[in-house]
Amino acid sequence: MQRYFLAEPYRPQPVYTLTGETYHHIARVMRMKPEAEIYLVFADQRAIVAAIKEITEEAVLAVELRKEALAKELPVTITIASGYPKGDKLELIVQKGTELGAAAFIGFPATSSVVKWDEKKLNKKQQRLAKIAQEAAEQSQRQAAPAVELLASKKQLQEKLSEFDAVFVAYEEAAKQGEKAQLAKLLQQVQPGAKILAVFGPEGGLTEQEVAAFTAAGAITGALGPRILRTETAPFYFLAAASYQLELL
Amino acid sequence: MQRYFLAEPYRPQPVYTLTGETYHHIARVMRMKPEAEIYLVFADQRAIVAAIKEITEEAVLAVELRKEALAKELPVTITIASGYPKGDKLELIVQKGTELGAAAFIGFPATSSVVKWDEKKLNKKQQRLAKIAQEAAEQSQRQAAPAVELLASKKQLQEKLSEFDAVFVAYEEAAKQGEKAQLAKLLQQVQPGAKILAVFGPEGGLTEQEVAAFTAAGAITGALGPRILRTETAPFYFLAAASYQLELL
Repeated sequence: MQRYFLAEPYRPQPVYTLTGETYHHIARVMRMKPEAEIYLVFADQRAIVAAIKEITEEAVLAVELRKEALAKELPVTITIASGYPKGDKLELIVQKGTELGAAAFIGFPATSSVVKWDEKKLNKKQQRLAKIAQEAAEQSQRQAAPAVELLASKKQLQEKLSEFDAVFVAYEEAAKQGEKAQLAKLLQQVQPGAKILAVFGPEGGLTEQEVAAFTAAGAITGALGPRILRTETAPFYFLAAASYQLELL
Repeated sequence: MQRYFLAEPYRPQPVYTLTGETYHHIARVMRMKPEAEIYLVFADQRAIVAAIKEITEEAVLAVELRKEALAKELPVTITIASGYPKGDKLELIVQKGTELGAAAFIGFPATSSVVKWDEKKLNKKQQRLAKIAQEAAEQSQRQAAPAVELLASKKQLQEKLSEFDAVFVAYEEAAKQGEKAQLAKLLQQVQPGAKILAVFGPEGGLTEQEVAAFTAAGAITGALGPRILRTETAPFYFLAAASYQLELL
């Protein structure tokens, strides 16, 4: 069933009036008819099943049938911060990371980042990534589409660290030394509703100085198993492990 | 440090003589010099650190310095079976799945598979995927490069099921119904050395008939968390959860 994300929070209404892109997609792209059922997902992560009653020239009118039964969001919010990687890897991180439950994505220029993006390029890239996140959220039946923020400096990331309850830095050296305890410790101790930031370096990894700056601000460093994961694969491991620990165990 | 996979099992030797592609890569591509150190990974998954002693016109001569200390392989062998997906998704599954620890990959024509590959195409594809697996195994510092097998019929997959100690079928309907117990149960009960087959449908999913055929042969069906994962993302979840449960917890 098709899933539409709305900008406003949930407020019960006898009839929901859908306009703009949602209207266009229902009426023109999908060519739905009255009686068809859709999901409506509100900005406060509440979701309902609705039936289309009428399609006018300007709006789709729909009525609520029932609340969506299952919780589709992780019990903690996980933000993935990636040092800008090469090529279209950030697209892959955002698409798959959204399916795997990430709450938000942050890109930042790490010391080893090869790409240099100016403000115009960052804006364009941000729009593209936000669209990918929204589409992946619809496809994976999420109750929220992750936000995407692309930073112009590392300092901006440092300034955000205090917003999080825990900061985990995936560190290749930890994997090489066989570190095994930190990720499980974090995921087993974390409280529902906690805000976690997981930081990943670009292809060349994070420098010692970068890791030191994160740990000085209270971050923990750890490995994601004994194998060396690429910059785009490591976030998938982190998110899947979090889901397994917090949603299945 | 560069990693080379050799076709023979480990047997201690005063000097290891490296020829063929390994020689070519060391001498011509990397242009290494005597004293440079490399990993040599043998067919029985044993790995050593070796130092190059001499590079002749035909061979690299190397001596063992020490055994590789860490175990890089999952304590169980996991084979990922994917119903042929569209485009180059199988490449992505094999590359990332190798990083995440898969022991082998099997492709098979599922009912919903759109692509139809003849024997010639399957052979070509298999060679390409085996190369991707080998490169990803080197990059992620594995002690074994996964095998890749592309089947021409579903029957061939059915005939293999008895080779495995457990068969897990990732089923979208299970995710939609909020199934949560099966994956954790499997991973918590599995014995070291066990052979697990994890089966994933193509974009359209597995049909009810396909799932029934697997369960009739003893397979369990289950979900990978509450979100709907794409065909290429689901194996990443399975492998990361297995690593988290078996290597970190």
